[in-house]
Amino acid sequence: MDTRVDGPATRAMCEALDAADPLRDFRQRFASDGSGRIYFDANSVGAMPATVPERMAAFFEQQWMQARRQGWNGYPWLERPRQIGANFAHLLGAAPEDVIACDNTSVNLLKVLAAAWAARPHGRFRILTERSNFPTDIYIAEGLGRFIGEGFELVLADSREELLDRLDESVAAVSLSLVDYRSSERWDMARTSARAREVGALTVWDLSHAAGAVRVDLMGDGADFAVCCGYKYLCGGPGAPSLVWIHPRHQNASWPLIAGWMGHGDVFAFAERYQPATGIVRQLTGTPAVIADEVLHAASEIWRDVDPALMEAKHRSLGDLLIRLLDQECGTFGVELNSPREHARRGGHISFRHPGAGSIVEALLEARVVGSFRKPDSIRFGIGALYLSHVDVWDAVQRLRAILAEERWRDPRFKKVSV
Amino acid sequence: MDTRVDGPATRAMCEALDAADPLRDFRQRFASDGSGRIYFDANSVGAMPATVPERMAAFFEQQWMQARRQGWNGYPWLERPRQIGANFAHLLGAAPEDVIACDNTSVNLLKVLAAAWAARPHGRFRILTERSNFPTDIYIAEGLGRFIGEGFELVLADSREELLDRLDESVAAVSLSLVDYRSSERWDMARTSARAREVGALTVWDLSHAAGAVRVDLMGDGADFAVCCGYKYLCGGPGAPSLVWIHPRHQNASWPLIAGWMGHGDVFAFAERYQPATGIVRQLTGTPAVIADEVLHAASEIWRDVDPALMEAKHRSLGDLLIRLLDQECGTFGVELNSPREHARRGGHISFRHPGAGSIVEALLEARVVGSFRKPDSIRFGIGALYLSHVDVWDAVQRLRAILAEERWRDPRFKKVSV
Repeated sequence: MDTRVDGPATRAMCEALDAADPLRDFRQRFASDGSGRIYFDANSVGAMPATVPERMAAFFEQQWMQARRQGWNGYPWLERPRQIGANFAHLLGAAPEDVIACDNTSVNLLKVLAAAWAARPHGRFRILTERSNFPTDIYIAEGLGRFIGEGFELVLADSREELLDRLDESVAAVSLSLVDYRSSERWDMARTSARAREVGALTVWDLSHAAGAVRVDLMGDGADFAVCCGYKYLCGGPGAPSLVWIHPRHQNASWPLIAGWMGHGDVFAFAERYQPATGIVRQLTGTPAVIADEVLHAASEIWRDVDPALMEAKHRSLGDLLIRLLDQECGTFGVELNSPREHARRGGHISFRHPGAGSIVEALLEARVVGSFRKPDSIRFGIGALYLSHVDVWDAVQRLRAILAEERWRDPRFKKVSV
Repeated sequence: MDTRVDGPATRAMCEALDAADPLRDFRQRFASDGSGRIYFDANSVGAMPATVPERMAAFFEQQWMQARRQGWNGYPWLERPRQIGANFAHLLGAAPEDVIACDNTSVNLLKVLAAAWAARPHGRFRILTERSNFPTDIYIAEGLGRFIGEGFELVLADSREELLDRLDESVAAVSLSLVDYRSSERWDMARTSARAREVGALTVWDLSHAAGAVRVDLMGDGADFAVCCGYKYLCGGPGAPSLVWIHPRHQNASWPLIAGWMGHGDVFAFAERYQPATGIVRQLTGTPAVIADEVLHAASEIWRDVDPALMEAKHRSLGDLLIRLLDQECGTFGVELNSPREHARRGGHISFRHPGAGSIVEALLEARVVGSFRKPDSIRFGIGALYLSHVDVWDAVQRLRAILAEERWRDPRFKKVSV
């Protein structure tokens, strides 16, 4: 799916690319409202698996209502965290038994930062991150640090260069989002992990804007800890449980900070004292979010069938095409790319700038294109590779072009500014 | 609803009590499968609000599928944690603005224990609890203690007497389940809190087997911190988010241990540093479990309309009747009460013993009565006061009586032992 042929891109070219797309049938596995809306908001909330409404109706009627007493034994409620993790593991470059779904990303970040802190080499006192990291990633580290008190320091680097400069023998762990939530800029996980290893520091990766869009290879790239949002590219539903992964060498190294009963080695022994389960399972906390898990599980069953190499190729093809079309169709209207052009340096979304970004996003919504506005002047198009086509990209850019060409976004009714 | 009239209780008496029940119409607000099954498992998973299937179908179609981009702004997804808390607050004796729904009970326990630790008087080093407390309540305290390390001690008392004896000036906080998950024995919150206050210790209450069954008065009884399961008596659905309450005097006293972005004073400022929100809201962590919240919210809208005094009177009437009928109908078959007879000393369920308990629960299931077995020999009937009637209690005990009288439970097919 090479979109970099000579001459201007055309809709016919997009149709040809779609006809040759090996993942084209996955589109049917997601719900469509038949409205012709084009959803570029995988960075916010991914599309709904088509089976969700029926599956959840059956859950309510057959599991909760008719036989709920059987729940904890008769249904796979307590197995879901492992099953979901196993279904997503190949997208992360992880073994199926090393990933679980539970809690939210902030809570899972606390767990892995605490585990990294426990596993740090003697004498280390710094957690190093970027000032531009997603806010909760910074806040959670700060909160943990305040609880630890003396002997903990959180360092915020102002740039990637500064971060690498400060990555020295004082650093316990470096905590990074693999893909920046604003620019979509991607870290090189292999090189960064290697740099950290050279100085004996551990790496904590937040994969929220990467997994389900670009290939992640936690094991191959030498990562130590990772968390991932379940509701963006992974399509697990608004507020879905999050994924957590710990390299096997660290899994049993420390007592979990949130030592809840679901992480006990023998949950239904109701033992008096905690005995952590072996492996990633000890990071489970309390009762799983059974209903939310059921929805996320539906998504994971789709992803289980996806070859990550094909996913990445499709995502790249759509992203390259979007950039090319933004240049070709909208460049003269003041649209400027805000994400790396090089595929290896970007993640799940494409961000571009225009002074009227807030109003343009509203005008796009009316034109049935769903993107997201990020203050002060950016528009993000999050690319869901399993349900978007090259023709979708073409059509969306044409609608954007019309809004810009006709200056439709200047209409006062689009003044409402979203966040 | 006084069930303690002279002579043996009769079905006619139960019918009369139901006719006079001021809460009888609430039964219609819960789903029924029309099977005639009687659910005594509110201690495990409470009944499903009747609106849930339709409401969730609409959620999937209108919110997630058709317009998900509008979600974080256009729908009340981020308001739900507060709205749900406010709807349940009167059941807890709390102000509406002091309760929120989020995470699970284990995670919320960690938060309040950490907050209690931060708020403890100088020089205190002990968390005091019961050895018979619900396992996760002990494990979470232990996990926190191991993270704190030196200067922390977890003390497990072998009896309530021993606990009160050990409640001295060394104790930072006493962590108790208001109602015991096995025996249903209830602590006297007012007296225990007063005892703790005398020695300057803080109180942390887990209300999971109490709220929605007996009146709780956190403010009136002098509690400091509380958490509550959302899926038992409160009927929020399997694995529902949990409630958390902190006395206003402690809410702003410390940095939350899980300082996630939803607890920031200005969530969408995407500020570089964490600035905790004022009040209980700072205990929010990451993105709310939107789908699970929607279900719990449906339950909270029922409870919002319930007068806690009427709830307690109805629950007491059903519990007193169950005890009376177990004596009257099943006493000769070796059934022994395992919960306090006195209403003020018990919580949401009635536990009773029989050597064949495991098989009896299975035989009851076949007879369309849903209870739960607890090793080695106990049966628990959790009483959902909003959807059970006195006639249900009568009919359930008659079915139990028949199983015992005919020794039906000895049938080998009931040997399957549930947990």
